[in-house]
Amino acid sequence: MINKEQIEEAHNRIRQYVHRTPVMTSDLLNEAAGCRLFFKCENFQKIGAFKIRGAMNAALQIPHDKLMNGLATHSSGHQAQAIALAAKLLGIKAYIVMPDNSPEVKINAVKGYGAEITFCEPTLKAREDTMKIVLDRTGAEFIHPYNDERIIAGQATCAKELIEDTDTLDYITAPVGGGGLLSGTSLSAKYFGNGINVYAGEPEGAADAVLSFKSGKVENAPYINTIADGLLTTLGDVTLKIVRENVCDILTVNDDEIISAMRLIYERLKIVVEPSAAVPFAAVLKNKELFKCKNAGIILSGGNVDFRIFSRF
Amino acid sequence: MINKEQIEEAHNRIRQYVHRTPVMTSDLLNEAAGCRLFFKCENFQKIGAFKIRGAMNAALQIPHDKLMNGLATHSSGHQAQAIALAAKLLGIKAYIVMPDNSPEVKINAVKGYGAEITFCEPTLKAREDTMKIVLDRTGAEFIHPYNDERIIAGQATCAKELIEDTDTLDYITAPVGGGGLLSGTSLSAKYFGNGINVYAGEPEGAADAVLSFKSGKVENAPYINTIADGLLTTLGDVTLKIVRENVCDILTVNDDEIISAMRLIYERLKIVVEPSAAVPFAAVLKNKELFKCKNAGIILSGGNVDFRIFSRF
Repeated sequence: MINKEQIEEAHNRIRQYVHRTPVMTSDLLNEAAGCRLFFKCENFQKIGAFKIRGAMNAALQIPHDKLMNGLATHSSGHQAQAIALAAKLLGIKAYIVMPDNSPEVKINAVKGYGAEITFCEPTLKAREDTMKIVLDRTGAEFIHPYNDERIIAGQATCAKELIEDTDTLDYITAPVGGGGLLSGTSLSAKYFGNGINVYAGEPEGAADAVLSFKSGKVENAPYINTIADGLLTTLGDVTLKIVRENVCDILTVNDDEIISAMRLIYERLKIVVEPSAAVPFAAVLKNKELFKCKNAGIILSGGNVDFRIFSRF
Repeated sequence: MINKEQIEEAHNRIRQYVHRTPVMTSDLLNEAAGCRLFFKCENFQKIGAFKIRGAMNAALQIPHDKLMNGLATHSSGHQAQAIALAAKLLGIKAYIVMPDNSPEVKINAVKGYGAEITFCEPTLKAREDTMKIVLDRTGAEFIHPYNDERIIAGQATCAKELIEDTDTLDYITAPVGGGGLLSGTSLSAKYFGNGINVYAGEPEGAADAVLSFKSGKVENAPYINTIADGLLTTLGDVTLKIVRENVCDILTVNDDEIISAMRLIYERLKIVVEPSAAVPFAAVLKNKELFKCKNAGIILSGGNVDFRIFSRF
């Protein structure tokens, strides 16, 4: 179990490598939601998302001789960029296995950090098989995107900063995909928050966590169909356990609600967030009675958006 | 002629009513431009644009008995919102004449600040005639959007903050419409900037200022056709004089260049700006030799964007 000191150590460890992102507020959004909102802007984080926190925290704990072999992961998204940048910052190699149908913009972002990409077929089995070959060849350290205590403690530093930089919060909301950010958030709320309740936002079109939360085992989503493409993965056993112990509830929202929340953020905060990042705010707007007159922190997890989404604004 | 003390007084006068907006930087944008860029984020300003600075500076200098009659202007854009909010902050009435084809979102924004709107036909003559009737009825103070020294001194506080908050700048770039922001910027560069050169960005599809700058009299644009809809007005005699004396050059850019610059700002800075605000950055990207290896401040004038623009991203 991750304890308070591990999160404090993680924070000290990664501090010089990541941004302390700002917390934004808006009177107009407070009025719209009927509560006081504090937006933690991880869209301004390096790589445009919180994931660099966990990646750096994991990388910095690898023994030096092993670390010199490099870092590795398989991902088509933020995790690939996070590992690639962590390696670049540490002056070592990154080996990223990416599905061969990954968008060119994501491939270029990973290449931009100097990582070596190995392409594979777009199936989980192909990714894992290819990863094994790369690991055997390189001796690099594999870093899982969320089901790893080092990652969770790293992501927890985001909510720790939010708590340090705000008035007394009653609630924090975070999105849930694999659960690294959510489980870390719930631990920071417990250790640093003095009774802060944590709620998750999840898309209806990738509603695995809400099922797993109830059943206690890792469930698959009944169907996958959502614009919140950063939240498609299921929980892992490590994240599920922490989430079940420390999160109050998982609130689902549909794509129209996500777009509407995203649009409000653009119009009022004047910042760029990705659909996944708007999910917690959408959950707050959908559950106004629950949040009424409370102080609620909202983690805006990232700002890497495919601009084609704007056709739905 | 506006002197240094008038801008300092303006800054002290409006300080408690407006935001000191942040200055953002991006290594990736520096690389893209080949110089060091400092973005002054007036998209985060109250009403989402710099114009509240001039409006507050003008309003606060009106004699009390006259001020109690309220403020007035004719505008379909930021000026309407700026005057409406200035009046609200001072607890007085605002009378706004708006063309009857104004977008509903702008009408609602002005109404949201509690202003009284009088609609008129969408011609300059109808606006001025209707304004006169409203002024006769109310005794309110008419505030011109740019051709007024109080407005110019207020807008000048934006560049003053930018200079105070950055390393030594070589250049500042600002957009030019009526020239209130540009002339104020050039005066702050002269008084507080120790040799900073000021360049303007102007859309090719509203290229009046570049002609007026050469001829020395207020010219009309050869044609009006641009997405930078905040920059359609011509200079006034007051702003033209200051611009001719203190601005190095006016650089024009086309809509494709504006959209491309705007997109880079969204992707890299993760903030929402309107097309007009992206014009100076587009001018920097188009004139790389001029800005090469320099420290350049860029005023991002506002963030009130019609999301339909995204279809061109």
